[in-house]
Amino acid sequence: MNIPEIAKLGHVALETTDMEKSLWFFKEVIGLEETEEVDGVVYLRAWGDFEHHTLSLKEGKEPRVDHIGWKAKRAEDVALFAELLVETGTNVEWIEPGQEAGQGSAIRFQLPSEHTFEIYFEMEKTAADDSRKSILKNQTYQSWRKGVSPRRIDHVNILTSVDAKVITDFLANKLGFKMREYVKAPDESLVGAWMSVTNLVHDIAVSHDPESPTPNQIHHMSYWLDDSRDLLRAADILSENGIKFAGPGKHGISQAMYIYVMDPGSGMRVELFTGGYLIFEPDWEPIEWTIDEMDVGFTVWGVQMDNKLENNPTIKA
Amino acid sequence: MNIPEIAKLGHVALETTDMEKSLWFFKEVIGLEETEEVDGVVYLRAWGDFEHHTLSLKEGKEPRVDHIGWKAKRAEDVALFAELLVETGTNVEWIEPGQEAGQGSAIRFQLPSEHTFEIYFEMEKTAADDSRKSILKNQTYQSWRKGVSPRRIDHVNILTSVDAKVITDFLANKLGFKMREYVKAPDESLVGAWMSVTNLVHDIAVSHDPESPTPNQIHHMSYWLDDSRDLLRAADILSENGIKFAGPGKHGISQAMYIYVMDPGSGMRVELFTGGYLIFEPDWEPIEWTIDEMDVGFTVWGVQMDNKLENNPTIKA
Amino acid sequence: MNIPEIAKLGHVALETTDMEKSLWFFKEVIGLEETEEVDGVVYLRAWGDFEHHTLSLKEGKEPRVDHIGWKAKRAEDVALFAELLVETGTNVEWIEPGQEAGQGSAIRFQLPSEHTFEIYFEMEKTAADDSRKSILKNQTYQSWRKGVSPRRIDHVNILTSVDAKVITDFLANKLGFKMREYVKAPDESLVGAWMSVTNLVHDIAVSHDPESPTPNQIHHMSYWLDDSRDLLRAADILSENGIKFAGPGKHGISQAMYIYVMDPGSGMRVELFTGGYLIFEPDWEPIEWTIDEMDVGFTVWGVQMDNKLENNPTIKA
Amino acid sequence: MNIPEIAKLGHVALETTDMEKSLWFFKEVIGLEETEEVDGVVYLRAWGDFEHHTLSLKEGKEPRVDHIGWKAKRAEDVALFAELLVETGTNVEWIEPGQEAGQGSAIRFQLPSEHTFEIYFEMEKTAADDSRKSILKNQTYQSWRKGVSPRRIDHVNILTSVDAKVITDFLANKLGFKMREYVKAPDESLVGAWMSVTNLVHDIAVSHDPESPTPNQIHHMSYWLDDSRDLLRAADILSENGIKFAGPGKHGISQAMYIYVMDPGSGMRVELFTGGYLIFEPDWEPIEWTIDEMDVGFTVWGVQMDNKLENNPTIKA
Repeated sequence: MNIPEIAKLGHVALETTDMEKSLWFFKEVIGLEETEEVDGVVYLRAWGDFEHHTLSLKEGKEPRVDHIGWKAKRAEDVALFAELLVETGTNVEWIEPGQEAGQGSAIRFQLPSEHTFEIYFEMEKTAADDSRKSILKNQTYQSWRKGVSPRRIDHVNILTSVDAKVITDFLANKLGFKMREYVKAPDESLVGAWMSVTNLVHDIAVSHDPESPTPNQIHHMSYWLDDSRDLLRAADILSENGIKFAGPGKHGISQAMYIYVMDPGSGMRVELFTGGYLIFEPDWEPIEWTIDEMDVGFTVWGVQMDNKLENNPTIKA
Repeated sequence: MNIPEIAKLGHVALETTDMEKSLWFFKEVIGLEETEEVDGVVYLRAWGDFEHHTLSLKEGKEPRVDHIGWKAKRAEDVALFAELLVETGTNVEWIEPGQEAGQGSAIRFQLPSEHTFEIYFEMEKTAADDSRKSILKNQTYQSWRKGVSPRRIDHVNILTSVDAKVITDFLANKLGFKMREYVKAPDESLVGAWMSVTNLVHDIAVSHDPESPTPNQIHHMSYWLDDSRDLLRAADILSENGIKFAGPGKHGISQAMYIYVMDPGSGMRVELFTGGYLIFEPDWEPIEWTIDEMDVGFTVWGVQMDNKLENNPTIKA
Repeated sequence: MNIPEIAKLGHVALETTDMEKSLWFFKEVIGLEETEEVDGVVYLRAWGDFEHHTLSLKEGKEPRVDHIGWKAKRAEDVALFAELLVETGTNVEWIEPGQEAGQGSAIRFQLPSEHTFEIYFEMEKTAADDSRKSILKNQTYQSWRKGVSPRRIDHVNILTSVDAKVITDFLANKLGFKMREYVKAPDESLVGAWMSVTNLVHDIAVSHDPESPTPNQIHHMSYWLDDSRDLLRAADILSENGIKFAGPGKHGISQAMYIYVMDPGSGMRVELFTGGYLIFEPDWEPIEWTIDEMDVGFTVWGVQMDNKLENNPTIKA
Repeated sequence: MNIPEIAKLGHVALETTDMEKSLWFFKEVIGLEETEEVDGVVYLRAWGDFEHHTLSLKEGKEPRVDHIGWKAKRAEDVALFAELLVETGTNVEWIEPGQEAGQGSAIRFQLPSEHTFEIYFEMEKTAADDSRKSILKNQTYQSWRKGVSPRRIDHVNILTSVDAKVITDFLANKLGFKMREYVKAPDESLVGAWMSVTNLVHDIAVSHDPESPTPNQIHHMSYWLDDSRDLLRAADILSENGIKFAGPGKHGISQAMYIYVMDPGSGMRVELFTGGYLIFEPDWEPIEWTIDEMDVGFTVWGVQMDNKLENNPTIKA
């Protein structure tokens, strides 16, 4: 039997208590494009995303991430993942084609931290309508139509109160994520981990916070910009829209530049992300950072992000 | 038996007729770092390259590329590739560990176009000496020490007079490269192809030119810059050094920005490269361009590169 | 009697044969803001312009520039200029307050090349309406609301078939413009001149072309962008809107980067402009360039602009 | 009698207690060019500065700024300023030609805060030696030769414990500086003022701090960069050199981006500065900010500068 593999981060399914505000934030300020609205769910993506959606927005009773979607490498990998997960004691739920717009059969299951993951293979690569279509055959929408205008989804960062090692082991052993960089506490426990199945330094990061309100919080999701100047332009746009943010700054880990900003509708934190390095090495040695090195590791320069700011909480997954 | 896989482009082994000029160009103007010099071969890399070298320079009787090195995914893949290639009629030569500085056992063989490829797995990830070392644990050298200062090697573009389809079939079937974008002539023949084993749009491009002086020419090799402003800075630096170049411009294919410049020592063309998109989709449909669309495909905007310029030839591989 | 002085370029009054197209170009693509529409004249400015307008648009029978407006340094300078001009044989017409929206009394007169200049002092510094207003007290509108989004008007470039020296003498002797850089033909005649009353290298350039259809053509007007990346972003936006342009490139003269693009409604050429140097020296020695040096002088690198392109004509003033 | 005028900020004469460290900082890290060394004084300037020097460095017993040099508009203005200053009770010292390398006759005098100003007119516009000379006739040195590589000197910011209004009145009434922006305390006293004789928002800023160790402190001097990306590149360079800094951030006042960094030799604070707006309006209404608005006024976004940091003091003038 082939070992099933994950190809990439697909999408985040977000529920918001203020649909109007969230739509304003993601469409007007961030500048995501709407693919379509189906049954009250608005499906969004960036101008350089190819699949039907990388973010879905739905009204909910509390702000939460319903699930994080991952695309499998081959059609048969969805069932293979289901088999392997069930065999090793993880419950798996099957999702019907079309239950999520644009998507084929998929499975959902929970990490030991109770974060819900979805694995799918089939997803419509919806063409843009003529008025928004790019002149480039390899680009979905015209860029720079509105707001910050990021190119594509980049990664998710999940926060948990349980032992982060349990989560990264699950991600590595069952889903094939490779460890790229990590931060170790003096007691050897894992403070943070950056893992990927792609050449990105991370498709997912796992952050540990013993005071996290639940084991299954979402720290942030991230969209990618092409240039550092685009990030500074984003700082201007956010400022003019009266939206607070942390950054700009540069991470040591990943070497990327960032701005962290919250959707005022859901409280979901979004990282605007640019620069950094890619990992092509198959024999990559994970970079280990200690807490002492975090001055450089989290923020080489620029405005730091404080996870614990009262006005800057995380939301539940 | 497992199918062996290529992980990434490793290096280009370049021979120059004017070592002094080539060293000035690559070290002072482009700003590559020297790892070491062994037996008259100078091993160079960019500040963000991890392995021992991404370019080697050696005095030769004519300017030529001795081989293009590719890193295998697993240690055992080198022998597996050897086996598979021999079985299907390709001669394979074994290279002793250390024959190329920093490198373990490797194999060399020729494409049907007579371009020489090398496949290795073991390569020293040489640390930088203290005076050039970055403060970042995930970065080899300090950036911005000299000249253009690109981050890392990006891709190679090989030029051939033989049917390009024969080459891309070889790359796809024997080495696992995936077709990402291609240009088709009115007679359905292949004009150009962009292929990769990574998330880059191309690790290698194959260009067809019936008038190419040999079947095994090198069109260019490429180094990556982080920002479009860095490319414009490169334009200033090249201008001040009296070095002609084509660009800046933006490709439609790959969506990346470029400058093409030639090493005055060897005549090797180097593309300085930034921006563009990544392909994470496992079910990617190669983008087909026709000759009619090449106005946008080669150059959406900016200075075009003319392959046929007399002062802008290619060198032999 | 005090010598009257010009403080800055104020505005360009443009007439177009296709108001709809020109409004689309200047408002949607370039991203200028509309201050107001009065009697069929639409008054526009960039987000960082302080005065009522820097461009006015009006339907006309042929595309032409009605006049170029210059702000005097002191209120009394308008009348002083009138006096001086009349004394030295130049006809002066008085413009009533409000004849041009936002503006006080002004004078109009013609250069020896028949280009019409206007000199005013009083001009409303109209505040932006709340929905477009910047959070910054020193900035008129929010930036980045639409399209290219330049910061402010920069300069004009007038083209003439008469001896350019006659025009630059007029500008220097009667209006106080200082010569900053110029290009000399082998016969010592003036090919081009860059002059200013501000610290900019030029508020006005004078270009000579013996084949110019009239003595009073407008070569282009220019808007300023803050960063080179903003110029490349403009290239993307223009490309996606199906609008051809020349550039990006970098001038040797002024050291600034540029894109030249034509308003499809009027045929008016607009230069998007960034970078370059300022002149603070009171004892500035004008930089002399010869025709031989124009490879560097006009375009150090990048796409050159060809004045003579059939699809790239100038319009009348 | 004509009213004498100041044309521009010329230079800062700095004394350092650690010449080696200061030279390393200004030449290697910031990347200023050395014009020449005369009698132990090293004369420096940026690649786009035209005059002989914009910074002079000399070993001293304590870190201090000996004087700030200003260029007069006309040769005769030096003597006219001397006359006017003496008439109104300010002592004036004459400086011989050549006492400061490259410079003609000059005068020195003190502000009511005891800061020493120099006014000169004649200053050699020293050409660069061939190895560092730009290919551009309007540019002194090649850019990007080393370190941060700013284009030119920008402004000075003086700090005083005396009533700032006394100083700005002196600057306005005797030297012709125009008020551009200012910050007012609740008691109507002046907290800070930005003034200029050029189109820059400020050639000089005056900051009031009642706890300033002397009335004549220098808060910082500033060099200009062309692009925001150049500022982020500076952040990388400073980080790699182990030099702490505040920023990057964006001021509301002036709209410019900044990094503040201290010369480890002298303790002199240097602001790396880019972006922002120019003032061409002769009828400019100074922008008034209150203390309440300083969140936006000092730092719209980015890392704030804290004047009071123990490790971030000012030096004496």
